[in-house]
Amino acid sequence: MTRTVLESATRTVTLGFDEPFCVIGERINPTGRKKLAAQLEAGDFSTVERDALTQVACGAAVLDVNAGVVYNSNPDPNITEPPLMRKMIELVQGLVEVPLCIDSSVPGALEAGLAVANGRPLVNSVTGEEERMERVLPLVAKYNVPVVAISNDDTGISEDPEVRFAVAKKIVERAADYGIPAHDIVVDPLVMPIGAMATAGQQVFALVRRLRDELGVNTTCGASNVSFGLPSRHGINAAFLPMAIGAGMTSAIMNPTRIAEMEAIRAANLLMNHDANGADWIRFAKVLEQVEAGADFAEASQAAMAAGTGRGRRGGRARA
Amino acid sequence: MTRTVLESATRTVTLGFDEPFCVIGERINPTGRKKLAAQLEAGDFSTVERDALTQVACGAAVLDVNAGVVYNSNPDPNITEPPLMRKMIELVQGLVEVPLCIDSSVPGALEAGLAVANGRPLVNSVTGEEERMERVLPLVAKYNVPVVAISNDDTGISEDPEVRFAVAKKIVERAADYGIPAHDIVVDPLVMPIGAMATAGQQVFALVRRLRDELGVNTTCGASNVSFGLPSRHGINAAFLPMAIGAGMTSAIMNPTRIAEMEAIRAANLLMNHDANGADWIRFAKVLEQVEAGADFAEASQAAMAAGTGRGRRGGRARA
Repeated sequence: MTRTVLESATRTVTLGFDEPFCVIGERINPTGRKKLAAQLEAGDFSTVERDALTQVACGAAVLDVNAGVVYNSNPDPNITEPPLMRKMIELVQGLVEVPLCIDSSVPGALEAGLAVANGRPLVNSVTGEEERMERVLPLVAKYNVPVVAISNDDTGISEDPEVRFAVAKKIVERAADYGIPAHDIVVDPLVMPIGAMATAGQQVFALVRRLRDELGVNTTCGASNVSFGLPSRHGINAAFLPMAIGAGMTSAIMNPTRIAEMEAIRAANLLMNHDANGADWIRFAKVLEQVEAGADFAEASQAAMAAGTGRGRRGGRARA
Repeated sequence: MTRTVLESATRTVTLGFDEPFCVIGERINPTGRKKLAAQLEAGDFSTVERDALTQVACGAAVLDVNAGVVYNSNPDPNITEPPLMRKMIELVQGLVEVPLCIDSSVPGALEAGLAVANGRPLVNSVTGEEERMERVLPLVAKYNVPVVAISNDDTGISEDPEVRFAVAKKIVERAADYGIPAHDIVVDPLVMPIGAMATAGQQVFALVRRLRDELGVNTTCGASNVSFGLPSRHGINAAFLPMAIGAGMTSAIMNPTRIAEMEAIRAANLLMNHDANGADWIRFAKVLEQVEAGADFAEASQAAMAAGTGRGRRGGRARA
């Protein structure tokens, strides 16, 4: 049975076909967040701290940390990203207990993060591009950590799922040359927007099944891509996630502060028999009740966590 | 390709693996609705009329009609149900254009409904019980209509999915003896409450796949059973339905006035590529927006239909 083990200093999270779906919180990322980027350049980490605490309270089992900010004062990410990544990793792992996912396209930033991260973080990511494999896979082997493998290569992102499967297979095989086992490869089969490609959903469901059955690997995705450009995106995402979980998807890199998606994932865990005695669902249902009564999801989640997981006692009502 | 064709006087609805999920509205049923039962005994059909119009506006493609009321004045359903079923079928098909599902455990009521129903209604239901098969299958053959086959038999409801599959197979084979083709059998594999049986979800997903792949039949279920006894049931149902659809389930007998479930089904249709150009989703998103702004789901759905963005009421646009 495929098991991808992530660790912080104190906690173990396992990705697997018989495990609860692993939510990797995506919020600590300055890409497209101008305000956060400016704060980071100014040495203000208050948003990072808040995002770390909020995402974990809302149900993230792992936090992605991306330091991809382009400084006004220095536009070279090879210079600016490694020290910022180090600082952010140290900050986040000092605040929360969950394992981290070190996210960068700059190999020097991946290594800077790996050098300071506790336990067994997830590296995000390698692709099927030759140069990228040559730079990232030795790092992954050196630190004995798992890695996200995105199924594009030097020819770009193929719309043909056969090609994307072949790229994933190539990365798994290349990783084996470095002594990296298949259970440490978490494949992102690439989710296309259904508004642009009507078969995008069926493609992913079929790909995830093949990746599980033929390569025996865990999988992840940028879940919200599927609804890009369409109205009522959360409703699409909240149906996509259970369907992907039913097909065998074992994690997603996503925003855990969105209640619709988190409700869908927790219900899917229950329906997959990955929630013993429904304990997690019953606990979450109390948060849902508070949100229906007007509370903010993140605040209600934090209050439930502060109340000691909310189990066996009434969680304090969150103030909106 | 398996296609189960239902018809009203003016409209065709097809159940199939490449068709949108078929929502069979369950509300016209006095079981457990004391007020409705009393109204029916008193000859008051106003609730039936309202339920018919509301369910179609909310997205039911077929309406279930059940006349199973136990009169205070006459406790014998073999006497009371047939004339009431006839009256209810005539009333409902005079109000809405969708095909009907004639729902009774009284064979005389099924025949009374079949005698007056336009087009090609669905019979609900036969089971694997010998007496039931002997009474219902000849009716199904005589009227050349499709039938729901519930996978329990004289030994009751088995918790073993292998047994439930075998019962479904037995009904399909027995039906063939009467000249009823497999594509006119819509199997209900029986959804157990996940609160009582943790494997209930996985059982159904696996059963639906087998029923599709090995027997080539369409499937249905009482979708809300899965969440019986648990808190926040709509959240569980709204994850169950997309997962069941992903596994190959093609219809459900359910309450179409519940927005969470209907949103999940419409999103799943989009993700299965059963919603050309996302037209249905985009139309539905406008209703969602109104509900988020405070409107009632049924009222917003009826307003959208009246504005010509929906279909279903007699006099509206019919599909050839």
